[in-house]
Amino acid sequence: MEIKELVLEIAQKAREASQALPLIDSTRKNKALRAMAAALEKKGPAILRENRKDLQQAAAAGQPRAFLDRLQLTEKTLAEMAGGLREVALLPDPVGEVTGLWLRPNGLQVGRMRIPLGVIGFIYESRPNVTVDAAGLCLKSGNAVILKGGSEAIHSNRALARLLQEVLIREEIHPGAIQVIPTTDREATAELLQLEELIDLIIPRGGEGLIRAVTAQSRIPVLKHYKGVCHIYVDEGADPVLAEEVCFNAKVQRPGVCNAMETLLVHRRAAKKFLPAMVARFREAGVEIRGCQETMKIVGRGTGLRPAEEADWYEEYLDLILAVRVVPDMTAAIRHINRYGSQHTEAIITRDYDRAREFLKTVNSSVVLVNASTRFNDGQQLGLGAEIGISTSKLHAFGPMGLNELTTTKFIVFGQGQVRS
Amino acid sequence: MEIKELVLEIAQKAREASQALPLIDSTRKNKALRAMAAALEKKGPAILRENRKDLQQAAAAGQPRAFLDRLQLTEKTLAEMAGGLREVALLPDPVGEVTGLWLRPNGLQVGRMRIPLGVIGFIYESRPNVTVDAAGLCLKSGNAVILKGGSEAIHSNRALARLLQEVLIREEIHPGAIQVIPTTDREATAELLQLEELIDLIIPRGGEGLIRAVTAQSRIPVLKHYKGVCHIYVDEGADPVLAEEVCFNAKVQRPGVCNAMETLLVHRRAAKKFLPAMVARFREAGVEIRGCQETMKIVGRGTGLRPAEEADWYEEYLDLILAVRVVPDMTAAIRHINRYGSQHTEAIITRDYDRAREFLKTVNSSVVLVNASTRFNDGQQLGLGAEIGISTSKLHAFGPMGLNELTTTKFIVFGQGQVRS
Repeated sequence: MEIKELVLEIAQKAREASQALPLIDSTRKNKALRAMAAALEKKGPAILRENRKDLQQAAAAGQPRAFLDRLQLTEKTLAEMAGGLREVALLPDPVGEVTGLWLRPNGLQVGRMRIPLGVIGFIYESRPNVTVDAAGLCLKSGNAVILKGGSEAIHSNRALARLLQEVLIREEIHPGAIQVIPTTDREATAELLQLEELIDLIIPRGGEGLIRAVTAQSRIPVLKHYKGVCHIYVDEGADPVLAEEVCFNAKVQRPGVCNAMETLLVHRRAAKKFLPAMVARFREAGVEIRGCQETMKIVGRGTGLRPAEEADWYEEYLDLILAVRVVPDMTAAIRHINRYGSQHTEAIITRDYDRAREFLKTVNSSVVLVNASTRFNDGQQLGLGAEIGISTSKLHAFGPMGLNELTTTKFIVFGQGQVRS
Repeated sequence: MEIKELVLEIAQKAREASQALPLIDSTRKNKALRAMAAALEKKGPAILRENRKDLQQAAAAGQPRAFLDRLQLTEKTLAEMAGGLREVALLPDPVGEVTGLWLRPNGLQVGRMRIPLGVIGFIYESRPNVTVDAAGLCLKSGNAVILKGGSEAIHSNRALARLLQEVLIREEIHPGAIQVIPTTDREATAELLQLEELIDLIIPRGGEGLIRAVTAQSRIPVLKHYKGVCHIYVDEGADPVLAEEVCFNAKVQRPGVCNAMETLLVHRRAAKKFLPAMVARFREAGVEIRGCQETMKIVGRGTGLRPAEEADWYEEYLDLILAVRVVPDMTAAIRHINRYGSQHTEAIITRDYDRAREFLKTVNSSVVLVNASTRFNDGQQLGLGAEIGISTSKLHAFGPMGLNELTTTKFIVFGQGQVRS
């Protein structure tokens, strides 16, 4: 079959499934999710066998260690995937939830009811566990999903798709609910992105290159974030111990993720006391510092600092590198964030009531924190349950997206014969 | 200046304004809205003079009566526009509203705060009052707006823009907050739709042709509805008097709008009693009926009915024409709605508890009603306050869009030194 026909057939099947899925009650969806978890545990060895084919290909192609790490499935990651599905089964079902019901003067009772979006196209790279995570969240929220993973994980993804499909059929759920595009052809993605009549939303997950390419091609709305240039601003009078712990956590605990701090902004009157100890601690942990002129002066040359260049303020290092800038006040910090930031995650460390409120009000990033680590920008951590991604576009969802963000609301109206005059 | 530069300059100015607008408190915004209302009343004659130029041009071009009606401003419409602005001033300000604040196990307090979307591009036809309505709603919700009206209303729109601009300057609000593109050149719209870095959302309002053209060209997300093929399903056992009143209202009260009924579906066991009287009443009111075979048989030939063709089920007449179909049961009615409908507005008339619930649950249109007229799909009627349009796309907003739908939410987090482990 030609790629074009193949993708169209998959999308039509997904659309069909999306008409049946909103009517399946939670009990049945949860049973299917738990059956998928059990199948993952039972058929683990077969999945790992297919994953090894991907690993061998990647190794033969000379891919670096980090790439292989992301690609590799183990008994532990399989157990985590199964655990994730069981967690999603425990989350409340968003479909059918009525968010508010109000009475109009004419006696009409008006409310909003959550319904699934329909068909979601999920385009991602490397990590095959995303296949299972995304499938679980879409099923629970009543959406059909079309998964297009990277060519590097094709064997793993096909094996996982087969397993999920078997469970769907056994549980008598439309098999169009979860489908993997079983080809590595790039044309398949291009084709998928044209089917605006059949697919309601595209979620890309991967590097900035992938996301930009998807956005440029897509005729379907895309929920995305390009990058996370996250800032912490340490205010005048901030608790230095608290500031140090939060900044250290935000940079070092997991530097390769989008909610890690990339630039530290320090109030001039806090800098002399705070920066030398903070930088020393970062240096000990292997963090390379790129400082502004004032930082260099305060911490002192010969401490291994590099001067920051203009380009550093834009940089998402995703590594043990940190840009540091001394600012005259909070206004300057916010100006810096507006200019160089990516509207992802920003934090202030302060003891000042007014500035805490002002920062929360003025900074329009998807998550804005007072006295807490930027690493908390995560659906699980913020209490949404599992997340399907983070959006830094403001439309539909801004910030981490959980089950609710995979739904929309329709208006429901209870009347007793009301007409309009 | 070239069109391209002109549009870019307007968009950049709007972006600038959008950074200042979220920080303006309600009191100042409301004062500006009331000042605009007062200016409309005071400068009415000058506006009407400009409007007459548009009317003369349109008349000279041989435009039909209905076109001239939509275009014409009168003292009454000016007063309505002023009244609309004062109403928007009275609505609660969505910006800064915190919708929920919850506590995490680690003591973090997490909430969502409404913020403006940013810059909104508003593209519309004919009615110059839209200029003022849209400007008021965008200002109140903290968004900058770029207005592009049709060439037929250019004199009116320019005059209204001048008036609004004067008030902005007097009230010390960034003049980029409300701008009208002062040219009739189609290139301006094409140019506007490319500026995805400066504009956050496009809302087109007008005929299906305009909306399809905007959607096809735009690189910016578009909130739209193409058409409203709205249905009422009269169930077996429905109260015949209530059914007749609601159906009559939905078709006849204002047939030219998107939430008017276009197709009436009647349960076979209700049809014999209900249809003859209903059709007679419609015929009396000048409604042309296009009936299915069964309808024709029940009502009888010689009553001026025309047999419906397949194309009638898809039709948005926007006129005193109604398609009527007899269906074997509710499932068949829902199947008809899914196949021919536009996900706009659907109602059921019933006395049956289970079917009322089933219809509300199963039909995924933007507004679904039980025992009430489809004409209630309207922001004002449903209690959202003034509306900026109706969306039949599911992303971001589905159904009537009020002030809240012109905002998004960011997460706010109050901590006391929490870090992630």
